[in-house]
Amino acid sequence: MLFDEYPTRTEDPLEMVERKDPVVHASNGSMVRGPLGEKALGRYRRDGFLWFEDLFSDSPLMTELLEDLRALERDTESLRNENFVTDRHSGALRSVFGIHEISERFDRLTRDPLVLGMVRQLLGGDVYIHQSRINDKAGFSGGGFNWHSDFETWHSEDGMPRMRAVSASLMLTDNNEFNGPLMLIPGSHRHFVPCQGATPTNNWKESLKDQRIGVPDEQALEALTQRRGIRAPKGGAGSLLLFECNTLHASPQNLSPWPRANAFFVYNSVENGMQQPYGGTAPRPEFLATRERIRELDMLNEGGTVAMR
Amino acid sequence: MLFDEYPTRTEDPLEMVERKDPVVHASNGSMVRGPLGEKALGRYRRDGFLWFEDLFSDSPLMTELLEDLRALERDTESLRNENFVTDRHSGALRSVFGIHEISERFDRLTRDPLVLGMVRQLLGGDVYIHQSRINDKAGFSGGGFNWHSDFETWHSEDGMPRMRAVSASLMLTDNNEFNGPLMLIPGSHRHFVPCQGATPTNNWKESLKDQRIGVPDEQALEALTQRRGIRAPKGGAGSLLLFECNTLHASPQNLSPWPRANAFFVYNSVENGMQQPYGGTAPRPEFLATRERIRELDMLNEGGTVAMR
Repeated sequence: MLFDEYPTRTEDPLEMVERKDPVVHASNGSMVRGPLGEKALGRYRRDGFLWFEDLFSDSPLMTELLEDLRALERDTESLRNENFVTDRHSGALRSVFGIHEISERFDRLTRDPLVLGMVRQLLGGDVYIHQSRINDKAGFSGGGFNWHSDFETWHSEDGMPRMRAVSASLMLTDNNEFNGPLMLIPGSHRHFVPCQGATPTNNWKESLKDQRIGVPDEQALEALTQRRGIRAPKGGAGSLLLFECNTLHASPQNLSPWPRANAFFVYNSVENGMQQPYGGTAPRPEFLATRERIRELDMLNEGGTVAMR
Repeated sequence: MLFDEYPTRTEDPLEMVERKDPVVHASNGSMVRGPLGEKALGRYRRDGFLWFEDLFSDSPLMTELLEDLRALERDTESLRNENFVTDRHSGALRSVFGIHEISERFDRLTRDPLVLGMVRQLLGGDVYIHQSRINDKAGFSGGGFNWHSDFETWHSEDGMPRMRAVSASLMLTDNNEFNGPLMLIPGSHRHFVPCQGATPTNNWKESLKDQRIGVPDEQALEALTQRRGIRAPKGGAGSLLLFECNTLHASPQNLSPWPRANAFFVYNSVENGMQQPYGGTAPRPEFLATRERIRELDMLNEGGTVAMR
């Protein structure tokens, strides 16, 4: 077993520890240049996320991306695949993983020069797609997601060594106060909150529907929210959220009539590839954590880049 | 069986109908005078609710009321009583009914001159307490409430003849964006939305934990929210919400660390006393719908009125 900087899923509870990795990474000691200015970088260091309301709202691609999702929702054949996760109660689509391998439009989006430029800046150089997905919440019935750090899961269940990944989340529909918007705890990315309890075999089959293992205890959540509260960015389809892999987040159920769907592209540094899972379980499937099909994303050399704006 | 102005709980679906009762009632043809001005009355007619942010926030009684609730939460003996409803998942207190018969402080509150003055104005004269309760949502675990009109239940399961009741809801804690605040559909009180499906025997034992029967269909909710959206008033402990008995409302789960507790006093006109339940089931217990212990509330003749401010 490798030495573990971030032990978690232990039998006995462990204390919260300080983050051991930079928030904005550098390549060979010097920051990567890109579209984000010092003020935005400072906010990302402080909060663990950046919100760009309506950044891509005027792009004609937005309608097409939503069309692709609506087609997948109706695709009863695909719903049986393991990378399609359905809602426990309604049976409707909850998540679809590997969306960039299913839809050519979503694939092109992973190479959008503006997003990729920001991500390379945050991660300090070359990156690849570690995971992609859409989280979909049907009107009236879409279920919520419990509090968690993605890194905590990716580290223990997938073997991601360091905190050097970022999620770019594109709103495919409006995210408003009532349709189950993503909530984040500002500043929580600066702490690693270990979670108690061993990971059961094939935990992901449960956790993708309703996460129980890998949820921080209430004392830790209370301490972290006491400092800076909770934030739930709201905006139209085409808004973009960049959030650090260790930022604690959750989202409530959707009791409104308005569907909510967000796409997530998780970019990981090429220097942070998967090892054996630190929690000792077998690696999860490729659609949850890329191991084999790693493809460095280079916006200059790849054809077919998207100009979202 | 009495002629039913508002049929519901039928085997086949019924269409939404216009409300057949006034929203602001008059006594012998003339409006009752009181603390609400024309503008506030007009808003109540249009929206079906009135929000008074922090109206009683400075009252020393607020702390005492919350103390009474915290004592009830710890009272494991009482938790077994039928008027104490626990959360299906966490086992924590979800609702306590008949709070004005349990706590002398809450009882006094039902005769607060300002609240009673407003309520008499809205209902056109003398009133009594039809039901009182606290809905309590523990941090991290408090469950939500599905969309419903109180009147739809009170009419079919309790025999309330007309729409001539109002709920006064006092926030006992902060109600914020994240701790499961009450959501209302403005204008929905102007329509009666029949609900499909017969009422099972002792339905209340289920519905107080998780309402399934008496929930409007999605088409009706969508049509009503399309016009005027959804509103979730936010404010500190001591804020007051008055909402018409037929205004559709719901509330999401509480994923935040901040507990949310709201007290509800349902005032009914003395001219609108319970008949046999229109849905044909046996009357529900007294703590859900007062039949025997009716006591007219008169702020002038009762000792011990509260001056909340």
